[in-house]
Amino acid sequence: MKHRVSFQGELGAFSQVAVRQLAGEDFIPVPLPAFQEVFESVVSGKCHAAVIPIENTLHGSIHENYDHLLRYDLPIRGETFVRIVHNLMAYPGVRFTNIKRIYSHPVALNQCRQFFEANPGMERVPFYDTAGSVKMLMEQSLKDAGAIASATAAEIYGARILRKSIEDDRENYTRFFLLERPKRSAKSGMAVPDLKYKTSLVFTVRNIAGALFRSLSAFALRDLNMTKIESRPLRGKPWEYLFYLDFIGHKDDPVSRNALGHLAELADTLRVLGCYPVAR
Amino acid sequence: MKHRVSFQGELGAFSQVAVRQLAGEDFIPVPLPAFQEVFESVVSGKCHAAVIPIENTLHGSIHENYDHLLRYDLPIRGETFVRIVHNLMAYPGVRFTNIKRIYSHPVALNQCRQFFEANPGMERVPFYDTAGSVKMLMEQSLKDAGAIASATAAEIYGARILRKSIEDDRENYTRFFLLERPKRSAKSGMAVPDLKYKTSLVFTVRNIAGALFRSLSAFALRDLNMTKIESRPLRGKPWEYLFYLDFIGHKDDPVSRNALGHLAELADTLRVLGCYPVAR
Repeated sequence: MKHRVSFQGELGAFSQVAVRQLAGEDFIPVPLPAFQEVFESVVSGKCHAAVIPIENTLHGSIHENYDHLLRYDLPIRGETFVRIVHNLMAYPGVRFTNIKRIYSHPVALNQCRQFFEANPGMERVPFYDTAGSVKMLMEQSLKDAGAIASATAAEIYGARILRKSIEDDRENYTRFFLLERPKRSAKSGMAVPDLKYKTSLVFTVRNIAGALFRSLSAFALRDLNMTKIESRPLRGKPWEYLFYLDFIGHKDDPVSRNALGHLAELADTLRVLGCYPVAR
Repeated sequence: MKHRVSFQGELGAFSQVAVRQLAGEDFIPVPLPAFQEVFESVVSGKCHAAVIPIENTLHGSIHENYDHLLRYDLPIRGETFVRIVHNLMAYPGVRFTNIKRIYSHPVALNQCRQFFEANPGMERVPFYDTAGSVKMLMEQSLKDAGAIASATAAEIYGARILRKSIEDDRENYTRFFLLERPKRSAKSGMAVPDLKYKTSLVFTVRNIAGALFRSLSAFALRDLNMTKIESRPLRGKPWEYLFYLDFIGHKDDPVSRNALGHLAELADTLRVLGCYPVAR
């Protein structure tokens, strides 16, 4: 049976590009409208796995998905980075000079400002989703319009790419997590030798001056490399903070285990969100 | 002469709500399409000040604006928090039951999912801007449509609010900064006695294990409270990180000055972005 992997958005969304990088071609993509439904699809067993965006180089961490990670307890099993490449596409046969309007999500339209400045005759039309705008364009066989979306969306809906990579900033990357249901087998989650692992965790401390400093000593004193640290104020609890932390190491390595034990002593709460091979 | 304060978006955008909180009613709002233009409007002297969003409780830090802060060198002079309250509004006289379509930015539409689930007869129509959708609705005197935006947008364009606060999550806050040109007067930026200050800075360290830990010692060893710490990988420099850090204190307090001097010793680069009274 092919694996079903859910993600937020339409078929051809950037999340589907991430699904391909993480799960290969041999899966059934399950597009869903909201992140919460994506998490629930795995908890309920409707899907084998899910892929969610967690942070972006321009827009920061997606706190909503951190909240879902804490709530649903689905372990992170992989990470990948997708470069957000915006392509102008249209119904096959439509030429660049035929295009009067371009549909896409307003965030994508805004990330192609230089293109629109160079082509002032093309009107920007906001749409609910990048891939959704390609789907609509193809369903309605629009001959005077284009859409901005991923190359995967062009492939899925049969649109023709007229201009590749029209985004202003080439350093726009989104990091995605692969989530799976916790497995019963004792072997699952064990380190594969020679693979480099990353562990993601969330902990809380009260903002006594130096509380974070002491917490980080758990890693610094053991020469463990952190790749992410971020504070987030706790809702309704002034001066209490939640921290996101990623470090290089498998959670079951002896050194990592000692660091996690030490951190558990120092923090008010601690949750390991998952442990997974480092993306190339 | 009234002060001109620029912000990104249309008149009535949530940024304008922040402008009112930071600069009062006695200013000329200058809406501009992009963040870069907002920064340039102050650098060029066209505007006296600017207000920019810097982070959101659901969506994280707006790295694009941190990049502009580093590039344009406009000191932060104030901060405020705006709760993102979405209101359904329409042309005066239009009743709730007349509404067939609702215009707004897709992010706002997505933040009112429960409302749309309870009102399945109302179609969601994506628009480039929340306040822009109210402007359009009023200009075209639409009698069968609504828009989702701030109460300020209703007031500015004369729309009638039909349902208040239809957002799913009431804990959706955006933090904004007030920016001004550096002043020549030696007195500007001096602490007002009895006011509590916050200082924002950006520093870089190479990811030698423990580099961040040592950097934070500059604050922890002086009992200075941090209110934000966030890592961001440096573009094109694997294992080098930029950190955003806010701490409670005026940069010219003796203790803060010692901490900043100590951090300058430990970090590769250090920039103070500004020092401003803590928002209530």
